[in-house]
Amino acid sequence: MGDLIVWTYDWAPEGPRGFVRDIRLRWACEEAGLDYTVQTVPFDDRGPDHFAHQPFGQVPFLTDGALEIFESGAGLLHLARKSETLMPHDPAGEAQTLQWTIAALNSIEMVSVPWWFLEVTGAKENGLTGWLENRLARVEGILKDREWLAADRFTVADLLMADVMRVAKLRAFGDRPATEAYVARITTRPAFTKAHADQMAHFAAADKKRAKP
Amino acid sequence: MGDLIVWTYDWAPEGPRGFVRDIRLRWACEEAGLDYTVQTVPFDDRGPDHFAHQPFGQVPFLTDGALEIFESGAGLLHLARKSETLMPHDPAGEAQTLQWTIAALNSIEMVSVPWWFLEVTGAKENGLTGWLENRLARVEGILKDREWLAADRFTVADLLMADVMRVAKLRAFGDRPATEAYVARITTRPAFTKAHADQMAHFAAADKKRAKP
Repeated sequence: MGDLIVWTYDWAPEGPRGFVRDIRLRWACEEAGLDYTVQTVPFDDRGPDHFAHQPFGQVPFLTDGALEIFESGAGLLHLARKSETLMPHDPAGEAQTLQWTIAALNSIEMVSVPWWFLEVTGAKENGLTGWLENRLARVEGILKDREWLAADRFTVADLLMADVMRVAKLRAFGDRPATEAYVARITTRPAFTKAHADQMAHFAAADKKRAKP
Repeated sequence: MGDLIVWTYDWAPEGPRGFVRDIRLRWACEEAGLDYTVQTVPFDDRGPDHFAHQPFGQVPFLTDGALEIFESGAGLLHLARKSETLMPHDPAGEAQTLQWTIAALNSIEMVSVPWWFLEVTGAKENGLTGWLENRLARVEGILKDREWLAADRFTVADLLMADVMRVAKLRAFGDRPATEAYVARITTRPAFTKAHADQMAHFAAADKKRAKP
């Protein structure tokens, strides 16, 4: 058993399964061949114990020996410094990976997640639609011209951007063939397939435990 | 002259002045005593040249010799690795700084910026209010118990969180004395004062140039 522990919920409703963000860390560990285990915190009763590890009561967080890190983006950047598979370790490769990882979090997700949130909670109009449309078109333009976001190779920046873009609802924003091919290419990597299957199995097993009296 | 160049717009409307994100990089350079210059791209005509440096047509981006990095968060993390003033360089200090920097970008701004966007563009109701309220209350609870977010000292995580929290509109979310004291403490640092004054002067000078025939 390695020292790396990915923490997720002990159970999750069906809707978010396959999207709970522990998948980002599972996926990165699989890519890099890093030994890791998965441990859980209760989904239902998020007590002070959980908030002590993740101040917003969310998952994932990552334990690496004595270190502990919350935020999936921070966990990815931490793992990326352990493995050249996740990020080239020369200055230019690091800079490119860093900027695109943050772009996925703060230029794309900052629009796509609130947009999705408004959709799901049924706000009467979604003032974020145009903004998101514009952002998605930009990424489409970039992916037309290249295979990977950073350093001409797969990095955590691609992992994160593909994870942001694979949300099915984003298909509502018209034909974006380069993005679609990019997401397909990246989410058919064996490491994603493994991480996704593991997460689905994890929550399915939790269902069975829950169903018991 | 150093090799560090902070790129911003040549002009900006009055509203966002003092908040244009080049301030984050100016501020960090001032904290760390890093030699830097400011250069500009046109605000009005954002051509392919601009998009080649910043794929969403925004600012800032950072040049560091041959390296170039967009996304203010990525720029901050890059600068933080140059200077212990911005981040302790031991593993635990780095991990804490990293997680809180990403939290500011992806747990707070991902709610606060879209909320602000909906306010400004006048959507009929703002489905993000409860979400933001909850996030702000969490940060308030944390700041009640400690002075700094990471490593018991000032880091870029504080710089970024304070920059996110100083938006006046967030005062609408009730009394949050710990957060208010935190923002006041951090935004009275001489480096912030200098960076803020420089940005205001920059855009005021641009006004004068613009007014010319």
